[in-house]
Parts: sequence; C-alpha cells; structure tokens
Amino acid sequence: MIIARSTAELQAALRPVREEALSGVAFVPTMGSLHEGHISLLRAAQQPGDFTVASVFVNPTQFSPGEDFELYPRDEDRDLELLDQAGLTLAFVPSVADMYPVDFATRVLADPSLTSCLCGASRGPQHFDGVTSVVARLFGLVTPNSAWFGEKDWQQLQVVRSMSADIFPGIEIRSGATVRDQDGLALSSRNARLTPAGRLRASAIPKALLNSQQDNFSPTRTTAEDLLEEATQAFSSAEIELDYLQIRDGQSLQPVSGSITEAPNARMFIAANLDGVRLIDNVPIFSSPNHQPDRAAAATLAGSTR
Amino acid sequence: MIIARSTAELQAALRPVREEALSGVAFVPTMGSLHEGHISLLRAAQQPGDFTVASVFVNPTQFSPGEDFELYPRDEDRDLELLDQAGLTLAFVPSVADMYPVDFATRVLADPSLTSCLCGASRGPQHFDGVTSVVARLFGLVTPNSAWFGEKDWQQLQVVRSMSADIFPGIEIRSGATVRDQDGLALSSRNARLTPAGRLRASAIPKALLNSQQDNFSPTRTTAEDLLEEATQAFSSAEIELDYLQIRDGQSLQPVSGSITEAPNARMFIAANLDGVRLIDNVPIFSSPNHQPDRAAAATLAGSTR
Repeated sequence: MIIARSTAELQAALRPVREEALSGVAFVPTMGSLHEGHISLLRAAQQPGDFTVASVFVNPTQFSPGEDFELYPRDEDRDLELLDQAGLTLAFVPSVADMYPVDFATRVLADPSLTSCLCGASRGPQHFDGVTSVVARLFGLVTPNSAWFGEKDWQQLQVVRSMSADIFPGIEIRSGATVRDQDGLALSSRNARLTPAGRLRASAIPKALLNSQQDNFSPTRTTAEDLLEEATQAFSSAEIELDYLQIRDGQSLQPVSGSITEAPNARMFIAANLDGVRLIDNVPIFSSPNHQPDRAAAATLAGSTR
Repeated sequence: MIIARSTAELQAALRPVREEALSGVAFVPTMGSLHEGHISLLRAAQQPGDFTVASVFVNPTQFSPGEDFELYPRDEDRDLELLDQAGLTLAFVPSVADMYPVDFATRVLADPSLTSCLCGASRGPQHFDGVTSVVARLFGLVTPNSAWFGEKDWQQLQVVRSMSADIFPGIEIRSGATVRDQDGLALSSRNARLTPAGRLRASAIPKALLNSQQDNFSPTRTTAEDLLEEATQAFSSAEIELDYLQIRDGQSLQPVSGSITEAPNARMFIAANLDGVRLIDNVPIFSSPNHQPDRAAAATLAGSTR
C-alpha cells in the first residue's frame, strides 16, 4: 500500500493511473478510527483491477466550536494497518495545512433543503458546509470514478449525492449499509468514547429504530406520528438525551406526516447524546425494493447483525 | 467539429478521450458572441494532439436582476462557424435546463476578498457566485487538463484561479492577453450594443488606462492617487459614466495606495457605462517580468494593437 502524506505525494501516486487510464479509481473518504463499517465500504469499493484510495482526515471545518474535534478518536498506526490489510492501493493521510493552505477560501454549499434539517439544524449550518467543501476538495484531488459513503450518516450521503451530481457528475456516489454491533448499535468511531454503562444504555437507540420498521410495528400504528410517539416512549425510560427523532423522506429529507404507507421511502432518523457523546442512526421504515445496499457492505451487515 | 447540445452528448463525446488518455483536454468556456479575443484564446489553448473543447453558454445566474441577460448578444450559428474554423474538436452548447436541472442547488463560493470588490461590489455578490458555480459545474462536466480565460475579465480570472486551486487542483488555469481594437478598446461581446457615437467615445477608456502605464505616465506622478486623479480627469470630459476606477494588486485584488513603484503588480481597473452598456478593462501599471501572456494570445494582442 502506498501512503501519501501530502497532496503532492497523492498527485505523484495517481499520475500513472491517470496517464494510462488502465483502471478506475474508487475512493473511500474517512475520518479514521476505522471500524468494520469502514472496512466493509472498502471491500465493497474494491473492483478487480480498480485502484482503491482511502483518505484519513479529521476535517476541522465540519466541527462547530464546542464540539468534539479535539476529542475525536485518532489512531493513525492502527488505521494504516487496517487499510493495508484490507488490500487498499493508496492511503491519503494529509495534514490540515496541506488540505487547507493559507489561501484556501472556497466554500461549496449544498442544497439548503438537505443541509438545514436534522444534524444541520442541531450542529449548525457550518457542519455540512464543512463536509461538502472538504469532500469537493478531496474529489478534485483524487478525481475518482466512484466514491463510497456509509449509510449511518444518511443525511451526509444525500447531501454529498446532491453536491456531486451538480459539480462532479462524472463521479458515481455509492453507499454501504450500516454495520451494527451484536446489540444492533451502529458502529461509529465515537462509540469508543462511551463509558461501559453508556455503551449498554446505547442499545436503546437501535431497538427503538428497529421497532419502527415495517415488520415490527404494531398494526394499530399507521401514521408517522404514531411511530414517533412509540419510539419516543421507548427512550423516555432509557436515560438518553434525545437530540432529534424524526421521520423524513429518504431522498428529499422533507418531513413525513400522516399515513406511513403513503411514504414508501420514509426513514426514521435519530440523534442522541450519551456520556457527552453524540450518536446518530437511521433506518428505512419499509424495506424498499429500489434500495439495494451495495454488494459486500450488505453482506457484512447481514453477517454482523444476525 | 463535434457539437454536444446536452451534458449527455458531452459525456459521450469525451468518453473515448478519457478511456484512452491519449491526449490532454483544453477547455475554453465562453458566453458566445465570439470575437477575436475568444479566437486568440482558442488558438493559445490548442496544443498539438490536444482535444480542445469550448462551451457556449450565456449563464443566467451571473446576471443580477435589471442587468442585460436578455439583451446579451447571441449568435449561435456564427459562433459555431467560428469555432469550427478555429479547428476546435468539440463545442458544448447546453440549454439552461441541462446546465441547471430542477434539483440543481449547489453553490461554489470563492474567496470573498476577491469577489466582493470591483465588479463584485458593483454587480452584487451573486455575480461571482454565479460565475464560480457555473465554472465549477463546467469543470466537473468537461474535466479538462487546462482551462483558458481572457485577461479583460481580470478579476474573474483571479476568482476562478483561486476557486480552481482549492477544488480542482488538477486543472491548470491559463490566460490570454486582452485583444484590442485599432483604437485600443478591449474587444467585448457587449461592444456590439454601443451606438456609433458611443463606440467613438469608448476609446477614452483604453486611452486613460494606457496613459497610466509605466512608460506613459509623467515623471511627477508617483503615487497611485496621482495616477487615479489623472485618469479621472481624462474621463471628466468624455461623457462616460464611470462605475469604478481603481488601482489594486493584480493577484490579491487588494487596494494599492501611495508610491506606485512599491506595487510592482499593481493594475488599474475600470468599469464604465456608455449607452446603457457596461464595459470593463484593466492594465498592469508596470510590465511585469513574471507576467507572460500565454503564447498565441500574446501574439494576437501584439498584432492587433501595435
């Protein structure tokens, strides 16, 4: 595996790929502290003959003042080992100064109807502005044919899809299904910051979400409001501070209300604070025929959760 | 010459170039109504073996309400003929609906220190936001190796340079020197909208600018303020409504004041209204050793102005 620690090293490593156009470039941007969710994305991204690039960069501009930028888990040696084991071609591990030179000043802002709700409402508008600006810079540096994002950050996936369709139409955005722990908790780098007691309590999050899915909710619950009420009750006893619990369309992210069967793409979204750690998760209400989690990621999900 | 009238046709035409990586792609974005300034850019952009693409698209989002979007000169048949004669490989002539599908919502905003002065102050912040957003979309669609811009729109050139360095570092931004008419007036598609009398009066613009250049200003004029005063006086008798007349650094676009010899990269910038037509121009105060107008464009300038 090649390790590029600067944009210049990245360009040098990509030059032969570009000049010969022998293979596609698949790209998996990460903030490091890799877990099985990332690894499943890498596996899904790897096509025979493809040049697979992952970036490891904790992007300061998507954290608001007072958020956990400093506390965000970092373990570069372990990350590079995992990437190497996963068969990656190139790891891009830039410094903040290299990603944001002193004269860096461009902002790439996605559709406000996607960025201003859910985590955008809670974390402030700079959160997704930071996400789309760094993703745009990474896309411009790596110029991949495909880029892969996890479905745990569903809103981020839709925001990136929209931005990329507008500005990088040649890059195919792919997603990998959320990988969950034995008790259903979505894998997240931030889970490492939970106390043992908090980790136990955290299982209330997936339980409430999974209970809202088509096969699980009681037949008398027929509206979005019913489902939200049931999920909210489940949390009232769990000593978890809810940030939001909402049902929205999975593509437009617009609110869903009334009869749930009339919203076949509805998803339940949750953000909660536990031990001062912010956790997010989401599930589709209905198993959608047009939602096919991508290849290996889906296999990994099935393997690790059932 | 291939004519692509949609983004889909553009992608189809570029596919073989990308798959074989046999040649570079040089790109010249235009708003059509082509004149010798554009043609000189095209000539400069054409390297042996290169695939040269020009776009013809009058971008509505960079016009403010009340500006001349509707009146902007358009002559597609003539443009396509000129592009074909210039030996172009591909002309991209998209519709507004194709460039801006209904769900298009991303904005690419360049450094405010570059976009808020000069034309950004006069035309409003949406002007350069519209320019950088459409250029970013065009860059993402065409994915060129180089992109060419005229130096008449010097501020636009610096704004695009900055945005591209941040988001499209693989694209080399090149420029072509301003091409001028016999009396020095910078060629512009908007010149066609001047009355014959206005066209005569317009020559006061290049005269005042050229008079501010190193070899021409009187030895007693030593400060930026002196040069501006002299140029302003030249205009007071010309029945031209000045929008701005300023001296700024050619790269940072920050104001220059005091001793002019301490600002080797200073340029004089002007915008003026004549017959309801907005004209802009600029010149360097000093012939800068590190400013080399690009190849054929420079030759064309020399040929047409001296």
